[in-house]
Amino acid sequence: MNFFMVLYLLGLVCVIQGGCMLLPVMVGLFYGEEQWKQYAVVAAVLLIAGAFISFRKPKKTVFYSKEGFVTVALSWIVLSLTGAIPMFLTKEIPSYIDAVFESASGFTTTGASILTDVEALSHPTMLWRSFSHWIGGMGVLVFLLAIVPLTGGHTMQLMRAESPGPAVGKFVPKVRQTAFILYSIYSALTVLEVILLLAGSMPWFDAICAAFGTAGTGGFGIKNASIGFYESNYLQGVVTVFMILFGVNFSVYYLLLAKKFRQVLKNEELIWFLCIIAASIICITLNIKDEFYGGNLYEAFHHSAFSVASVISTTGYGISDFAKWPQLSQYILFVLMFIGASAGSTGGGMKVSRLILLVKSSAREVSKIIHPRSVRFVKLDKKKVDPEIVKNTASFFVLSMIVYVVSVFIVSLDGFDMTTSLSAVAATMNNIGPGLSLVGPTGNYSAFSDLSKIVMIFDMIAGRLEYFPLLILFSPTVWKDGFGAVRRRLTRAA
Amino acid sequence: MNFFMVLYLLGLVCVIQGGCMLLPVMVGLFYGEEQWKQYAVVAAVLLIAGAFISFRKPKKTVFYSKEGFVTVALSWIVLSLTGAIPMFLTKEIPSYIDAVFESASGFTTTGASILTDVEALSHPTMLWRSFSHWIGGMGVLVFLLAIVPLTGGHTMQLMRAESPGPAVGKFVPKVRQTAFILYSIYSALTVLEVILLLAGSMPWFDAICAAFGTAGTGGFGIKNASIGFYESNYLQGVVTVFMILFGVNFSVYYLLLAKKFRQVLKNEELIWFLCIIAASIICITLNIKDEFYGGNLYEAFHHSAFSVASVISTTGYGISDFAKWPQLSQYILFVLMFIGASAGSTGGGMKVSRLILLVKSSAREVSKIIHPRSVRFVKLDKKKVDPEIVKNTASFFVLSMIVYVVSVFIVSLDGFDMTTSLSAVAATMNNIGPGLSLVGPTGNYSAFSDLSKIVMIFDMIAGRLEYFPLLILFSPTVWKDGFGAVRRRLTRAA
Repeated sequence: MNFFMVLYLLGLVCVIQGGCMLLPVMVGLFYGEEQWKQYAVVAAVLLIAGAFISFRKPKKTVFYSKEGFVTVALSWIVLSLTGAIPMFLTKEIPSYIDAVFESASGFTTTGASILTDVEALSHPTMLWRSFSHWIGGMGVLVFLLAIVPLTGGHTMQLMRAESPGPAVGKFVPKVRQTAFILYSIYSALTVLEVILLLAGSMPWFDAICAAFGTAGTGGFGIKNASIGFYESNYLQGVVTVFMILFGVNFSVYYLLLAKKFRQVLKNEELIWFLCIIAASIICITLNIKDEFYGGNLYEAFHHSAFSVASVISTTGYGISDFAKWPQLSQYILFVLMFIGASAGSTGGGMKVSRLILLVKSSAREVSKIIHPRSVRFVKLDKKKVDPEIVKNTASFFVLSMIVYVVSVFIVSLDGFDMTTSLSAVAATMNNIGPGLSLVGPTGNYSAFSDLSKIVMIFDMIAGRLEYFPLLILFSPTVWKDGFGAVRRRLTRAA
Repeated sequence: MNFFMVLYLLGLVCVIQGGCMLLPVMVGLFYGEEQWKQYAVVAAVLLIAGAFISFRKPKKTVFYSKEGFVTVALSWIVLSLTGAIPMFLTKEIPSYIDAVFESASGFTTTGASILTDVEALSHPTMLWRSFSHWIGGMGVLVFLLAIVPLTGGHTMQLMRAESPGPAVGKFVPKVRQTAFILYSIYSALTVLEVILLLAGSMPWFDAICAAFGTAGTGGFGIKNASIGFYESNYLQGVVTVFMILFGVNFSVYYLLLAKKFRQVLKNEELIWFLCIIAASIICITLNIKDEFYGGNLYEAFHHSAFSVASVISTTGYGISDFAKWPQLSQYILFVLMFIGASAGSTGGGMKVSRLILLVKSSAREVSKIIHPRSVRFVKLDKKKVDPEIVKNTASFFVLSMIVYVVSVFIVSLDGFDMTTSLSAVAATMNNIGPGLSLVGPTGNYSAFSDLSKIVMIFDMIAGRLEYFPLLILFSPTVWKDGFGAVRRRLTRAA
């Protein structure tokens, strides 16, 4: 394995992280809050250390799948660990593990919090939490690809390892250009949301934080009542629409810009995604209308739509405590937690396209009993899907279930009720944030033991990176290769 | 499709069902309880109707996979529907849907009951419930294969469709002989258990019913307190051991009889099955020891072992109310519900060998990223596994999850708490019986709506037949073929 190329990229990631931290520094200076100092110190250390590590580009830039996966896994661990430091240094989060939980929750766009009172935070920390959603949403390595000219030809592996979904396509032949287009669409949509929120007279700091949280489908709020604080159906409606928009595959927007409307209409994932949302909203609206909203259809629809959009896009913003809703509504939301958003969006979960592939390939297995001799391929958007991708999708599903079952086992040691344990792990590994029962929209994750928090930190990163990259770190081969490279370099230097 | 061959076999199934019903008739006569009459009437009707239908063997005995799957699916529906009639006629179960639930629960060896007081039942009905476990455990079509000389060569398809597990092997070249050996081992083990129970001075009627319930890994009891009624650690211990024994792949017993001990030791499924049991017993023992058994290690072990054996073998007998145990213990049992027993046993669930295949094929997908060019097969017992079987196993898992998610959705309409809904469906589709919360070991299924009961009847049969056969009935091709055959026959007759 090309260990020094991995190290070089990690150095660049530190530089980007340090650069991003200058934003909370500026906010701190603007509001005259002295927390800017801690952010400035960490930013400086990251910039210097990162620049030192990535000062000399390795001669060998060869780069395969495994380097891509390892780089992405280590980058996200570095992001979470370093992103936690300023929150810990400002003493706003007194435990480092809690700070890492909060930081990992931010970058992975989970939005699960251990804080009981977010309104007590300083402005730099509020912004940093929301901004980490925005950085993590589209991915830090995709950002790196967009701005740093990487040669070597295999940079696609990085994008593949970080971007969500069963198969990552390039819009244009060049990876760098694709990454640039992605970030441009992402930024444009974010700015559009800020403008629409400002139009509803939301304060500008709130609008920026809310838009960061929506764009990354993260869900950290700066108010204890989350978006429920803004008692305006217009503002909540804007957030609802944008949560859905950021859960759509970004290639759809590229096709719209390229005026390929017919291809958009043929996009099966988009159709399923919208149908699942519509069906869920209708079921929940009817289920909660009489009992919770006194028969007011509009109010029930408003709350149902917000919650469905929030859960399926894996954002996790709340305006209503759905943990109190009837069982059927809770169960629908629980299932949506696992389905998640579309591939190539900023949302988490299993992704709708994987669901389609799994359903289609299972249906094919059933029909193979009736027509044993017919060789039929699984098709998506009327195109044959590579059988390797179908196999990989099945493995993804199995791996996620294994991670789920083992994680809930460890979390169960804390002895909370089953709905809490089951939904807490589901909400973290699918990067949603709030679960049900104790970790419902009005609860938080502070009550769990450190062990459970570490498990959920792992789950958040594993879920964001779709399991394979993080699980590869458990392979002895990877470690042997890494240590071997360092030993050789040291021997040569001596 | 060879529709008339399917009909012919269904006729034979009716004859077997009628024949089996003579056992409760005899018990009724023995105890002088007049419920024997209803059983006798239904038995007579089944024998006559079955003989009439299967009087003339079709000329064409061609038989493929699809005929096998359709025959098995329809047979089990017929078994459940007709097995319910006497219980309904004796008015011991006043609702026919409830009676079908009880009957399907019996044949599928689920052991979920809608009855609140089983001790009030007549002896014929008590016996019929337990005997249905024994018939369903090894399978009615396997029984048919063992006694009826079927020519046509493709009878293996029947066995494949009815026997549990990812791949069904024959011990000996002839299907009929294999089926005969299976039933012999099955009967011998059952008789052995009866003897051991009688040795612990259990009354003979109780011993037979308990042995039927254990052998089929069913779990219907004839006492309201289930096996907890017999306050003897010896009796409960015998049942514990036999629940595990009937959860083992029967090919292991065949290998033992053939003195191929080395092959037994190499059986991966057996090793995993026993390791999972041991690990679960240890965890639960330590978890419940202090809080529930006052630090008495032996008592905690006894109750833990019984519950683990009961759940993993999908029997469902109870001696303790594990729905009151700590969350960790409940969660372990919940996971065991899905894992289930071994392939080729009488137990339900996903089967341990499927779990092994899923874990191994997912691990292979992860290692493929590190070694992209290595072509590695999934191996079981040191033999390569056909990639088609691995694919089929993944589909099995996905199909079962789809059935699970949809079923819980419908059951959630009843509005019970989530643990009840999640575990009720898990306990029925994996053929266990008791779940957690309201459907825990001391509860029952009577509170559910008729719609939920119908869904769970479907789940029990779908789970017992491992989804594919029952799902094939939803294929329009099958129905078109069936109706086409009848129409042609009618045209020819006219």
